Amino acid sequence: MHRNFTSHLHDAILRTKTPVLVGLDPRAASLPQGLLADPDIASFAEQAKAFETFCRGVIDVVAPLVPAVKPQAAFFEELGPLGMFVLADTILYARERGLIVILDGKRNDIGSTAAAYARAYLGQASPWKADALTVSPYLGDDSLEPFVDVATERGSGVYVLVKTSNPGGKLFQDRLIDGRPLYRHVGDYVESLSVKSAGHTGYGPIGAVVGATYPEQLAELRSAMPRTPLLIPGFGTQGGTARDVAPAFDDEGLGAIVNNSRGIIFAHSRPEYKDKFGDARWQDAVEAATQDMIAELRAETPAGKL
Amino acid sequence: MHRNFTSHLHDAILRTKTPVLVGLDPRAASLPQGLLADPDIASFAEQAKAFETFCRGVIDVVAPLVPAVKPQAAFFEELGPLGMFVLADTILYARERGLIVILDGKRNDIGSTAAAYARAYLGQASPWKADALTVSPYLGDDSLEPFVDVATERGSGVYVLVKTSNPGGKLFQDRLIDGRPLYRHVGDYVESLSVKSAGHTGYGPIGAVVGATYPEQLAELRSAMPRTPLLIPGFGTQGGTARDVAPAFDDEGLGAIVNNSRGIIFAHSRPEYKDKFGDARWQDAVEAATQDMIAELRAETPAGKL
Repeated sequence: MHRNFTSHLHDAILRTKTPVLVGLDPRAASLPQGLLADPDIASFAEQAKAFETFCRGVIDVVAPLVPAVKPQAAFFEELGPLGMFVLADTILYARERGLIVILDGKRNDIGSTAAAYARAYLGQASPWKADALTVSPYLGDDSLEPFVDVATERGSGVYVLVKTSNPGGKLFQDRLIDGRPLYRHVGDYVESLSVKSAGHTGYGPIGAVVGATYPEQLAELRSAMPRTPLLIPGFGTQGGTARDVAPAFDDEGLGAIVNNSRGIIFAHSRPEYKDKFGDARWQDAVEAATQDMIAELRAETPAGKL
Repeated sequence: MHRNFTSHLHDAILRTKTPVLVGLDPRAASLPQGLLADPDIASFAEQAKAFETFCRGVIDVVAPLVPAVKPQAAFFEELGPLGMFVLADTILYARERGLIVILDGKRNDIGSTAAAYARAYLGQASPWKADALTVSPYLGDDSLEPFVDVATERGSGVYVLVKTSNPGGKLFQDRLIDGRPLYRHVGDYVESLSVKSAGHTGYGPIGAVVGATYPEQLAELRSAMPRTPLLIPGFGTQGGTARDVAPAFDDEGLGAIVNNSRGIIFAHSRPEYKDKFGDARWQDAVEAATQDMIAELRAETPAGKL
């Protein structure tokens, strides 16, 4: 069988022996001291420069340790066009350091516009050159198919929102349709897309976003979507634990990646690392937090078999 | 009662006597000849330059005729960071010419990240300076509230996807929950947000996107959401007619704006205008198509009373 995005992701997971995904969510007010003089009065250009230094600094630390990073588009967009150059730089720098890059943009639109988003972000042929993109399902099948087509053609990945990690996700996602919650219907559709294009790993290139904050639904969706790779947000700051995400993995410890953003990149201000490292040694705090999360997942989940 | 985004939009509709919204969806392959030598081999920089010239050219023509424009973010994102500078330029140029700018980005994320998107795009204090933004509802109430908060504070608007114009929208949006389609549940929630913040027009600043391609559902949603301003895509190229959108308006011809993108901006290649204007007089074709749509809506809808 052919190799697809998930094949490459699994190679990287097996090489690094961990499914940790580091979320790159730069926020001016949370940066280590020294990177930005005064967040309250910094210009967009000054913030953009600080974001570039910070994201490169995180990547330098985590590149040897984890398979992938997930830049959050919103925080770069918040700086205007200058922030978008830093987003492009961050993606390229991470790729150069051997990391797989999943851009968290939660994009989507009707068919021909969805195709523009897919061409914009997916693969080496695109200007942004991400390896995968998160997308939203509300617009239905003809809005998701263009992403599948471009991802299949370019060896890229797509992660569709299925059951999100926030408390408010339940407002629509948990409502029952023919006796089953909306997220199951979305999950079934995503699974049908991944089944059609499953590669040599048994997984397709079309994944699902399922929050660590709902462990029961995570287990339910893992068994309902055996060919779909999962991206699990909500670990750490949002409350998800290693034990909560254990059901996301297959018997070999594959099939899922677990994101941690603030808990890793802003580890210098977490009680566990603050006194030991502080702002001056913020990169050492990033490394310690990454190693600790790797160890937790090894101890509490099938990722220990990697 | 206080003035909000919809108050300002209604002022502009009353001044121009039309609810036509011109969609700015630049596509390299569809530009008039002369703006881009060869779309197939043009660099991103060359395409970005052509987009800038084209969008400014469209704005020059439509600024005296219509209340608002709607740049589609995807087509600018497709050119990478350079395209994002053109998006910013397009928004600023349209505002300088007196147009209200609704950015079609269909953004959203969990709470604190949704707040970053809202701060990024809404109002004079933001780097992009759009007057309103389209957002997606799948992530639920705590993903929409940050947009409501920022929009209320900055006098900006938000349009939430409710019933989209594409055929595939029905896959999830039309599924029944407690006997009513999902889009009605989303619509009820959006209405509750607009009721809370209704201004002197009786409308709140939180709108709904409802496609012209589903006239029955449009009528149903108009009566279910009396305080919610509507943004109606799907007119023209997608098949919606003036008669189809008539139910979107209140008795004074207010409460809705009707978008036309390709049918106006690429009018030079439509059979009705091609022979008369052709590529060389593409701006005259844009003007003729805009005037024709204004006349159609005046003849067939309550917008005739404006």
